[in-house]
Amino acid sequence: MSRHTPNLQLDEQGHLLHFLTIDGLRRELLTEILDTAEGFTGVSERTIKKVPLCRGKTVANLFFETSTRTRTTFELAEKRLSADVLNLNISASATSKGETLLDTLRNLEAMHMDMFVVRHADSGAAHFIAQHATPGVGVINAGDGRHAHPTQAMLDMFTIRRHKREFVGLRVAIVGDILHSRVARSQILALNTLGVSEVRVIAPRTLLPHDARKLGVHVYHDLQEGIRDVDVIIMLRLQRERMQGALLPSEHEYFQLYGLTDERLEAADSEAIVMHPGPINRGVEMDSLVADGPRSVILQQVSYGIAIRMAVISMIIGRQNLQAQA
Amino acid sequence: MSRHTPNLQLDEQGHLLHFLTIDGLRRELLTEILDTAEGFTGVSERTIKKVPLCRGKTVANLFFETSTRTRTTFELAEKRLSADVLNLNISASATSKGETLLDTLRNLEAMHMDMFVVRHADSGAAHFIAQHATPGVGVINAGDGRHAHPTQAMLDMFTIRRHKREFVGLRVAIVGDILHSRVARSQILALNTLGVSEVRVIAPRTLLPHDARKLGVHVYHDLQEGIRDVDVIIMLRLQRERMQGALLPSEHEYFQLYGLTDERLEAADSEAIVMHPGPINRGVEMDSLVADGPRSVILQQVSYGIAIRMAVISMIIGRQNLQAQA
Amino acid sequence: MSRHTPNLQLDEQGHLLHFLTIDGLRRELLTEILDTAEGFTGVSERTIKKVPLCRGKTVANLFFETSTRTRTTFELAEKRLSADVLNLNISASATSKGETLLDTLRNLEAMHMDMFVVRHADSGAAHFIAQHATPGVGVINAGDGRHAHPTQAMLDMFTIRRHKREFVGLRVAIVGDILHSRVARSQILALNTLGVSEVRVIAPRTLLPHDARKLGVHVYHDLQEGIRDVDVIIMLRLQRERMQGALLPSEHEYFQLYGLTDERLEAADSEAIVMHPGPINRGVEMDSLVADGPRSVILQQVSYGIAIRMAVISMIIGRQNLQAQA
Repeated sequence: MSRHTPNLQLDEQGHLLHFLTIDGLRRELLTEILDTAEGFTGVSERTIKKVPLCRGKTVANLFFETSTRTRTTFELAEKRLSADVLNLNISASATSKGETLLDTLRNLEAMHMDMFVVRHADSGAAHFIAQHATPGVGVINAGDGRHAHPTQAMLDMFTIRRHKREFVGLRVAIVGDILHSRVARSQILALNTLGVSEVRVIAPRTLLPHDARKLGVHVYHDLQEGIRDVDVIIMLRLQRERMQGALLPSEHEYFQLYGLTDERLEAADSEAIVMHPGPINRGVEMDSLVADGPRSVILQQVSYGIAIRMAVISMIIGRQNLQAQA
Repeated sequence: MSRHTPNLQLDEQGHLLHFLTIDGLRRELLTEILDTAEGFTGVSERTIKKVPLCRGKTVANLFFETSTRTRTTFELAEKRLSADVLNLNISASATSKGETLLDTLRNLEAMHMDMFVVRHADSGAAHFIAQHATPGVGVINAGDGRHAHPTQAMLDMFTIRRHKREFVGLRVAIVGDILHSRVARSQILALNTLGVSEVRVIAPRTLLPHDARKLGVHVYHDLQEGIRDVDVIIMLRLQRERMQGALLPSEHEYFQLYGLTDERLEAADSEAIVMHPGPINRGVEMDSLVADGPRSVILQQVSYGIAIRMAVISMIIGRQNLQAQA
Repeated sequence: MSRHTPNLQLDEQGHLLHFLTIDGLRRELLTEILDTAEGFTGVSERTIKKVPLCRGKTVANLFFETSTRTRTTFELAEKRLSADVLNLNISASATSKGETLLDTLRNLEAMHMDMFVVRHADSGAAHFIAQHATPGVGVINAGDGRHAHPTQAMLDMFTIRRHKREFVGLRVAIVGDILHSRVARSQILALNTLGVSEVRVIAPRTLLPHDARKLGVHVYHDLQEGIRDVDVIIMLRLQRERMQGALLPSEHEYFQLYGLTDERLEAADSEAIVMHPGPINRGVEMDSLVADGPRSVILQQVSYGIAIRMAVISMIIGRQNLQAQA
């Protein structure tokens, strides 16, 4: 499966056909996503109005691995857009047995699906589906292997912009298991594209990819040093289930070295915000005082996830409608 | 978890914020629920019109234990009210592992839920969630442990009123496993609040709580004696799965002593109705001739369950809308 | 359970009350189903408009055995018709335990269902439910045991008519496991009722019912001989899970004898179409070159499945509405 076909997601006019990776997307498009999401966010953060933008469209959530949180926010976004929603939890074994992934795809297309939201443990699965999808059917990557999780990265960007107004001049630190994270790479790409001043990654050597520096980041192994004067701290989740064979610190050791506490947070800018994709391992990645404290914007990230997913879905469907009229 | 915070469910004007327990609710409010349900019940009992009262609202059904029947009637009620519905079956282990109940709650609130319908094996779980929910988010108890199942009790009251016109003057007998029933306590409270003449409970000593008489009931151990001249007989379900360690009669013995037959039914008033929350254990709690006979209103209870749930949901959402406009 | 009560599905004016079997249905009614489905099929095959024909109606999909493909196309059809949809996956054990099938039915009826779509491993289960359903509640058979799968047969007829214009004069071959197929019998009945010239079945003796010739077909054991000059080839799926105890060829042997290849296909009419209910066992029932080749209409069958299910559902609901007004 080819992982580097970013142009797959754009048509000749630069409109969004699929949303698979941040890779290859220009600042204008990322900003358009953020602006569209802004339009779906009410004055009160608790209300998102139901809009008829996707009435008569059918979106299939193809989840080859379980992710209640991501599936739920996509489903809510789809329903807010008035789409018909089909949830399909497909075990990897089922597709390998009777039917290939391609046969499953063709059959679902024949059922008049307009969009697939794909979650798969293999890097590149969403790309593969987009490459083989019938023209006019959109594909959104809802997380594939270690590779990409672009809507999560964009909701993080949205959260940063809501709190910091603009990206220029910001220092951002990403802390934790960079190696196994599906979102860290997407975040780094988005931050650099949107023009922050500096992206730092803070992790033990065992949880960093070999080519970390090539990503356009400054690498730190010491938390205190790394978060000095930063405006944004993005904590990653310690994903034990992904760390097969890695030399792991115990949870206690990890917290001693990389756990965020109110005391350590003092090294950052006095208005720094703290982010986490959830669910938090309290007492491992951070102290509850930080998670529930005034700097934490973790629950707002969840809220913004719906608006961002509405933005991406409606941009792709909007282009389909334009095409259908032409 | 505090179980006795009935005022939690009412605002200062006495409007419904949550629906957790019959405890502490006045006759006027219970009557308002019954009257509202009446409005949703068509001339023909087979039709309930779809109404737009909850359009744009999202209701999450949080089921920490399985209950197809209760979940289904809530889901149908929510869809008839045009709400967006999210079904979440959460195993107790999942919340204990990565995420606490409170973190789950906060995350769902961040996803813009307007209401939680909660089913949990622990008494007081719905109260706990209501205590910690953000103002403006409603919580309905869909059954918690042995404690309360208030919408089931209210659909029973609705069934009684539809058949007997008023509560004053009625004699009602509740038969069976009072000790382990989640609904018996709610029923007794509702019946007494609505002003029936007499509530009797009929059960073997081993299936009665120690403080049964404090509930404002007359206790009988003999079925024939207990149902003499009653207007309403509520049979409880023998819930073997809940009777851990209790000294149990065999099903055959139970039927010999407490099973309802046409012959025994003659002791009751000649127009007495027979109720059961379902599913019936035929030949244990009652004979099929009774279950399917002319006195049985058991299937009407199921129908009325949708109208009652629509009533409670729409009253809470209606108050939220008022509040949002103020 | 009586399997032969075809009149159960028609009222006195010959309108559809239930859709259980092709058996006993006249050509006019089958043609009405095909014409109605035509009305739901857009100019572009990728779009089926959402129509409000079943707004306010509730359809319960009662699946006593899993079938993602059939369940999904029914669900999509119901949503396109604007019905409220309830999916109930009921394990056979659950109904045998606490509650009989009849009690389950009565309870669901009491929840104001307007229609049941039933999938069950036992032949006759849908008939049984239709026999006991309250007047005004429709039942559709979505596959029962080896007996019938009438909506699958009708989508096959629709596919044939779309490609061949009319049935008169056609030669149709059905290839494979006739004995264990739930759809072969329905297909043969429909083809003969619609007036094709000849229906052939092609299978090894071990995969043919003893009374095959009574079905009004010509029997062949040799593939080449059987498909000579046919206009339509319907390949059946080799259902290993159903062939308990049968003397089975290996998959390799089966393909050698009955697998469809481009070379073998040359014996058929030069414009013959190839059909398969899916999912295909590639390299067993047919070669991938055939499955994905120009003669294959397999994916169109999937698409037409939604239109056919919309047709049958809306015809039954339409009659209910007429009745309600009368």
